[in-house]
Amino acid sequence: VKKDEWEQYKLHIVSENNFPTAAGLASSASGFACLVYTLAQLYGIKEQYPGELSQIARQGSGSACRSLYGGWVKWEAGVKADGSDSIAVQVAPEEAWPEMEILILVVSSHRKPIGSTDAMQRGVQTSDLLRLRAEQVVPARMARMEKAILSKDFDSFARETMQDSNQFHATCLDTYPPVFYLNDVSKQIIHVITRYNQFNNDGSAAEHLKAAYTFDAGPNAVIYAPRQYVGEILGLVNHYFPGVATSTTPVAPSEALVKAIGMEPNAGALERIIHTRPGPGPQILDASESLIGENGLPKSLAQ
Amino acid sequence: VKKDEWEQYKLHIVSENNFPTAAGLASSASGFACLVYTLAQLYGIKEQYPGELSQIARQGSGSACRSLYGGWVKWEAGVKADGSDSIAVQVAPEEAWPEMEILILVVSSHRKPIGSTDAMQRGVQTSDLLRLRAEQVVPARMARMEKAILSKDFDSFARETMQDSNQFHATCLDTYPPVFYLNDVSKQIIHVITRYNQFNNDGSAAEHLKAAYTFDAGPNAVIYAPRQYVGEILGLVNHYFPGVATSTTPVAPSEALVKAIGMEPNAGALERIIHTRPGPGPQILDASESLIGENGLPKSLAQ
Repeated sequence: VKKDEWEQYKLHIVSENNFPTAAGLASSASGFACLVYTLAQLYGIKEQYPGELSQIARQGSGSACRSLYGGWVKWEAGVKADGSDSIAVQVAPEEAWPEMEILILVVSSHRKPIGSTDAMQRGVQTSDLLRLRAEQVVPARMARMEKAILSKDFDSFARETMQDSNQFHATCLDTYPPVFYLNDVSKQIIHVITRYNQFNNDGSAAEHLKAAYTFDAGPNAVIYAPRQYVGEILGLVNHYFPGVATSTTPVAPSEALVKAIGMEPNAGALERIIHTRPGPGPQILDASESLIGENGLPKSLAQ
Repeated sequence: VKKDEWEQYKLHIVSENNFPTAAGLASSASGFACLVYTLAQLYGIKEQYPGELSQIARQGSGSACRSLYGGWVKWEAGVKADGSDSIAVQVAPEEAWPEMEILILVVSSHRKPIGSTDAMQRGVQTSDLLRLRAEQVVPARMARMEKAILSKDFDSFARETMQDSNQFHATCLDTYPPVFYLNDVSKQIIHVITRYNQFNNDGSAAEHLKAAYTFDAGPNAVIYAPRQYVGEILGLVNHYFPGVATSTTPVAPSEALVKAIGMEPNAGALERIIHTRPGPGPQILDASESLIGENGLPKSLAQ
């Protein structure tokens, strides 16, 4: 099969996903970014301006515009009425902050009661705080966050991350009728991370940030942490949310830390832990791993 | 015992309360208002300017400034540096809106994990949205709310009430570290009231407001409703949160309404229902109902 013939083909697209879908973990962003990237590769499309593909992906799912790039990516709102400058830009490549690790605590893979696009539109229509946040808070935070990433300043990065997550969920609550993505398990995770950050081995109460939580449009937590703390964090997860396998050896929390956290364990509250780190953008896999069978048809049709 | 002699007395104060304390139901407001009012009565104090007692009560617990009056009361922020004009003013007396009834759904009488004064101060220090709300949202809402009360416009009153409650809790979430007062039962109550308001017997989806929820610094719901809907609302409470006694005969929800609400019942989630209506301010009880025993000592000491 030659590429120039493909341009005449009608397409049968097979999409597979190893990530929880519709759980507020940007599965639609990964899917639309992958689709746009793959079609562009298939047809040999070159961008006519930087970010053209990002802008196309954005129309499938807003955050898909970011998923076309690896590493640390920002989505610029843009100012043009046609949205053509509302695109994503890479802030730093994936290898820029090698100590950074990510733990995704999957609280529930139940479908969200409301899709995030609907909720977001209702928020724009009804939340005064969403408007005030967009106009008066986000631009300065974006600049601080970019600086924190480029200078690998974890304290600033962590505080901005947690405050931005809290504020996003605040605007969901300010939507009418309100939208709730965080549930009681999410709040327990926030409590554990907050107390862990407030706990110092020297006994002082000064905050030393070792982990940052963030929640997208769902109850699942994404925890950012420097590698040196991942064992301790998994130890806390093991202690407070027992019943899920951990990737790295967990370091059991000290009695003093357990006392400082002061919360009862909640067994079975988590479904799964995904341990990852900042990675690359879309990748073309080896044809031997392809979803296309030897007869040129998708394997899913060939059975 | 004559009053002029009392002025020389050292006081032994006995305070009793039939309301859940430290549960976000303004128990401290009622207590401080009662204390200030009673001391003023005891010593025969006349206000030197309108609101003087309100201003004194405010120093015990902010919202106590309102509890000195009956009916519908607003707390004016004031502009003076010494706070002397930060006082409460009655908007309308308790008999102004006779159809209005109030159901307090007591979700839990566990103590709050954080006192509301601490949380409020942390909010002022760390929440951008709290500042923006105070400056840019609340003044216009206060004016709309006052107008809705005076014109007995339940649709406006209910929408402003629910949006203001949501926005208050949004600013708690925007506090760093975040403060959560609503729990999963609170969210279920919000869901039931939202769907009940969206449900029309004629099958249309246009919102018709029959009830308004509001939550103070705790998980307990305060539901405002015109009397004609109280039976239906108690029927919903009975259906979705079975296990508590209801004051009025509940009207069981129709199958169509249950289907529209689409939620599993949560038995045992409520502890108690308090059914009340806008009432008067502090009252002097008949001496025969007094807490003071025949020997002139508090009954609690006389045993």
